[in-house]
Amino acid sequence: MVLAHFGDELAAAVGRCRNPVVVGLDPRWDKLPAGFRQDLADNYTVRAEAYEKFCRGVIDVVAPLVPAVKPQVAFFEECGPSGMVALANVMNYAREKGQLVILDGKRNDIGSTAEAYARGYLGRGSVWGADALTISPYLGADSLEPFVEVAKESGAGLFVLVKTSNPGGGMLQDQQIDGQPLYRMVAQYVAEQSNSTLGQSGYSSVGAVVGATYPDQLAELRSAMPNSWFLVPGYGSQGGTAKDTAHAFDSLGLGAVINNSRGIIFAHQRPEYRDRFGDSNWQDAVAAATEDMIAQLRAETAVGKL
Amino acid sequence: MVLAHFGDELAAAVGRCRNPVVVGLDPRWDKLPAGFRQDLADNYTVRAEAYEKFCRGVIDVVAPLVPAVKPQVAFFEECGPSGMVALANVMNYAREKGQLVILDGKRNDIGSTAEAYARGYLGRGSVWGADALTISPYLGADSLEPFVEVAKESGAGLFVLVKTSNPGGGMLQDQQIDGQPLYRMVAQYVAEQSNSTLGQSGYSSVGAVVGATYPDQLAELRSAMPNSWFLVPGYGSQGGTAKDTAHAFDSLGLGAVINNSRGIIFAHQRPEYRDRFGDSNWQDAVAAATEDMIAQLRAETAVGKL
Repeated sequence: MVLAHFGDELAAAVGRCRNPVVVGLDPRWDKLPAGFRQDLADNYTVRAEAYEKFCRGVIDVVAPLVPAVKPQVAFFEECGPSGMVALANVMNYAREKGQLVILDGKRNDIGSTAEAYARGYLGRGSVWGADALTISPYLGADSLEPFVEVAKESGAGLFVLVKTSNPGGGMLQDQQIDGQPLYRMVAQYVAEQSNSTLGQSGYSSVGAVVGATYPDQLAELRSAMPNSWFLVPGYGSQGGTAKDTAHAFDSLGLGAVINNSRGIIFAHQRPEYRDRFGDSNWQDAVAAATEDMIAQLRAETAVGKL
Repeated sequence: MVLAHFGDELAAAVGRCRNPVVVGLDPRWDKLPAGFRQDLADNYTVRAEAYEKFCRGVIDVVAPLVPAVKPQVAFFEECGPSGMVALANVMNYAREKGQLVILDGKRNDIGSTAEAYARGYLGRGSVWGADALTISPYLGADSLEPFVEVAKESGAGLFVLVKTSNPGGGMLQDQQIDGQPLYRMVAQYVAEQSNSTLGQSGYSSVGAVVGATYPDQLAELRSAMPNSWFLVPGYGSQGGTAKDTAHAFDSLGLGAVINNSRGIIFAHQRPEYRDRFGDSNWQDAVAAATEDMIAQLRAETAVGKL
């Protein structure tokens, strides 16, 4: 039996698809195509079922095209326990369709509590069965270690928040410590853990979240964490372009996956697709937006060499 | 109709109970009293049902004694969707028994994603119905604002991680920025938000997590956030004593709630209670441990003046 290794699996999936696009599954009630919305928005069980159906529909379109999907737990949790049932079903469906599942939960806690999150989420043998999970570092290295330990055991991956895409992320992350921004301390931790989880692809299972909205920092952090996968949010709706992500990749086009949520799953509402597709052909809009993003990344970055 | 205000409700509940003890609901399979464990630990639905039954049993004992309970989401999430059903049931049960429910999820995200967490969890009108939620600040002020806005609308509360109880918390939190530790920047944010959510009790709805394991910082942060409730972890199992928490309180014994999880809910395994109670009388052990903690806080801190 070949043991799972998230870093290698992601490299294989990106290579096979010849693109690094991650489709973010962020269902929002007021943006769903008309056919999904009923007059029962305050019934969270109905809402959760609509989210599940919609996300399955997205996965049907993108699974043949991209290596991974990234469900955002918040939108499922917002629907209460029914939402979590929907999330589990969506994750299972994505796996059945051959997708890697990067769960965006930004979980964080200490000691055995962090370990409980890790054991629940990480690895295909876990109850949730995520291939990777995003985690938040404010509680320090001893809060990240339980996640790293379980990731090693299970072959799953982690993406630690390093430099986030939001305008206010710098409040703590950019503070200067001995002449270096705080986020470099987190990057150093990620780089160290990467050394202990290196795969045959040259990439590790402990990665970093680095926003597309800060291209200079992307370049700086690429050097600081040469063996770590980057999960890059901020593309599209948040203003990041394909060119902005160029420094996230190594010379072969590996090393980063670029997330797009709203810009793909709600493409039917974007001016450039609305007239061509509209609500009733929303899945065609998803396909077109995905293919356009792939083409942009292949044109503007080393992804073209994949 | 009187609008809810978490800061005032917590002050009223602490005053009514004459103590600031928060009982942490951290169910762990291997620590449950023997009667709860079956040979089905790998069936997460069975496990979740046992957690729910156990937590209800804890609430039955502590609801007449203390102002609030703090379910730790991680242990419920570890059981998958069934665990989240159990969590919702436990939260409902605690509210029915008159407890304030502080949900320990350490959630964090940006923009409308943070808002989704906030709308899902905050306030008795929300689907989860928590009175307060713990949140994590690494993503900066614009990631905390959506939580604060929803808390204001709903009358619910927040506890922002400022200075945590774990040994490694200092990795980021203690870094010096212009001569002050990083956690003071978070404290300043909490203090500012407290000014805009002040209640008639003099306390706000935006509080801070400050560990009992750092008594000097507790005193320093009490001055820095004079109108903010502190949620103090680290008592008991993590080494914090009643005396260590003394500086968390104002002169009237208000301003802080002290959490104890394992030390109370698994008191039947502690040497000082095991022989008196044992597994079969675990609820009596919970009562004794709660009463002993209340007595210690009343003897060693301003809580005695309540």
